[in-house]
Amino acid sequence: MAPLPTPRGGHFTASHTVWDAALDPVAVVRSGDEVEVVAQEASGGGIRPDSTAADIAVLDLRRINPVVGPFAVEGARPGDALVVDVLSIDLETWGWTALIPGFGLLADEFPEPYLRTSAVDSTPGGGGVQLLPDVVLPLSPMVGTLGVAPPEPGPHSVVPPRRWGGNMDIRDVGPGARVVLPVGVEGALFSLGDVHAAMGDGEVCGTGVETTALVRVRLTVAPGRAPASPVVITDQRSFRLETSVATTGIGPDLMEGARDAVRQAVDLLSDERGISREDAYLLLSLAADLRVSEVVDAPNWVVTCHVPRRLLPGWPHV
Amino acid sequence: MAPLPTPRGGHFTASHTVWDAALDPVAVVRSGDEVEVVAQEASGGGIRPDSTAADIAVLDLRRINPVVGPFAVEGARPGDALVVDVLSIDLETWGWTALIPGFGLLADEFPEPYLRTSAVDSTPGGGGVQLLPDVVLPLSPMVGTLGVAPPEPGPHSVVPPRRWGGNMDIRDVGPGARVVLPVGVEGALFSLGDVHAAMGDGEVCGTGVETTALVRVRLTVAPGRAPASPVVITDQRSFRLETSVATTGIGPDLMEGARDAVRQAVDLLSDERGISREDAYLLLSLAADLRVSEVVDAPNWVVTCHVPRRLLPGWPHV
Repeated sequence: MAPLPTPRGGHFTASHTVWDAALDPVAVVRSGDEVEVVAQEASGGGIRPDSTAADIAVLDLRRINPVVGPFAVEGARPGDALVVDVLSIDLETWGWTALIPGFGLLADEFPEPYLRTSAVDSTPGGGGVQLLPDVVLPLSPMVGTLGVAPPEPGPHSVVPPRRWGGNMDIRDVGPGARVVLPVGVEGALFSLGDVHAAMGDGEVCGTGVETTALVRVRLTVAPGRAPASPVVITDQRSFRLETSVATTGIGPDLMEGARDAVRQAVDLLSDERGISREDAYLLLSLAADLRVSEVVDAPNWVVTCHVPRRLLPGWPHV
Repeated sequence: MAPLPTPRGGHFTASHTVWDAALDPVAVVRSGDEVEVVAQEASGGGIRPDSTAADIAVLDLRRINPVVGPFAVEGARPGDALVVDVLSIDLETWGWTALIPGFGLLADEFPEPYLRTSAVDSTPGGGGVQLLPDVVLPLSPMVGTLGVAPPEPGPHSVVPPRRWGGNMDIRDVGPGARVVLPVGVEGALFSLGDVHAAMGDGEVCGTGVETTALVRVRLTVAPGRAPASPVVITDQRSFRLETSVATTGIGPDLMEGARDAVRQAVDLLSDERGISREDAYLLLSLAADLRVSEVVDAPNWVVTCHVPRRLLPGWPHV
C-alpha cells in the first residue's frame, strides 16, 4: 500500500470489481475527510439508455458492480469502526432495471432477460423515475455497495455482502444516512458504488434503478469501536409515507415466505394494472418493501411484501 | 353449525383456543355487518397487573391466545374472500410483555421467564405504554390474531398462522386497516383476539404489549375472490415516522440473519441504555422492526433490525 497525497478536490472514478486487501489505494485520507466519487452504474458500462434485453444476455460479469476506491484512512486499524456519512448523491438522468437470468428472488420463474431503462428526473419538483408510461416512482437515491477490504487474503467477489459491508443494498443509505463499518485491515480500504435512484426493501428482482452518480461521503475513524456487523443510521427519507397493500408468505421458511409474498404481489399487480408479470416484478423491486411481520409463532413465520397503495388504488374493489 | 340470531348490539366475549370448523358459531351475521368483541389478553387471564415472572412459568398453555368467535357470515363459501375492516380498538389500561421459555427468536439465549407489566394510557394526548421508568412507547394498537376456520377437519393450534390467517401478528392491522382472508368453510367462521398496544415487525421476543381490548370490525364477503394468502391494507398509523439505528444480519440464512441482527441490537441497547439484556430484548419486540433489506445478492442476504433513533440518541458518539 503506497501512501498517496491527501486529495484536494476533484472526483475519484477509478474502480475495482473485487474486494482485496492487496489493492493499492487511490488515495490516503485523514479521519474526518470528505471524498467525492463518480460511481458508474452497476453494469460497468454494459447497459446504455438505448440497450435492449439482448444486452443483458451478453453482460460481462467481470465488470459487474464496480466500486470506486479503495480509500485508505490514516490510522484506521482492525477493531476500529469506520463511520461513513453519506452527504450527497447526485444522479445521472437515466437508469436501468433488469431481470438477469439466474439472479433475483424468483429467478427460476423468470428465466428470460428483460430490461427497462427509465428517465430519472432529479430536478427540484421533478418527475422522479419514469418506469412505465403510467408509473412514476419518487426518487429515493441510495448507495447499494459500500464497504471495506476483508482481512482474509485474496480477491473476494463484490456481489455478496459480508461482515465488512459491501453490496448490502440497504435502501436507507441515502443522503443523511450514516453507516458504521468494522475495519478489517490497516487503513480500512473503503470503496463505494452501485447507486440506485429507487429500490424497495429486498430488491426482489435483483436490481434497483441502477444509475451513475456523484456521491460525497465523510469518513471518520472511531478507534476500537468495530460493530459486530455493519449498522446503519437511517435518513428521514427512507420511510414510505403511504399506506400499502401487503401480501403475505406464511410458513416455516422465511425464504419461501418471501417468495410466496412476492409471487402473490406479482400476480396482483399484473392483474390489476394490466401489465406483464415481468414489469410487475421490476416494479416490486423498486417500490415494494419486504418485512418480517412475525418470526416467533412456531412453526410458521409471516413475511409481508408491502406494495404502495397508490399502485393498487381500488383493490379489492369491495 | 346451528344458526343463531343476527346480533343487535352487545359485545361478544365467548372465546376458543383452537381453530376448528366443527365449532358452533357464537352468532350468524350478514355480509356488511359490524361485530364488536371483548378480546381477552393472550394469557387468557393467567397474567394480571401484579403478576411476576413466576406466573409465566406456570402459564396454562391450553388457555393461551384466546380468540372470540367464531362468527358465521351468511353466504360465505370456500373460494370467497372475507374482507375484515378494523374499525376501532379500545385498550385496557394495562398490558404485559414476557419472555416465555422456549418461545421467541432468541429462545435459546433467554431461557428464563421474565415479565414486565405496563400502564397503557390511551386517553387523547395520553402517555402511551410505560414499559420502563424512562421508556414510554407510542400506542400502536393492533389485532394479532384474526382468521377463519381451516377446512381441514379437527382442531388446529391457534399459535401458528396459516393460509387462513390466524396468529399473523402483522403490526399494520390497526384501526383503519383492512384484511382480506380466503374463506375455507361455509360461513367462514371468523374469530379474532390477541390485541397488542404496541409491537414491532417480527415480535422478536414472542410477545407484544398484550392487552384486553374492545374491538369493532366489519365483515364483508367478496364472492369468488379468495386470495392465495391473506392480504393486509395497512392503516396510516403503521409507519414509524422517525429515523432508526438499523443493525444487520448478513449471511446465507434469513433466520440466522434475523437472529444476528436482533442479538446485535440487544447488545447495543443494553450497553447504551444501561438496561438488562432481557429488557432490551423486550423493548425490541415492541419498538423495533425487522426488514429484509436484500435477498438477492447471493449467497448472502441482509436482514435489518430497525431500532427507533430516540432509543439510541447518541450512538455511535462520533
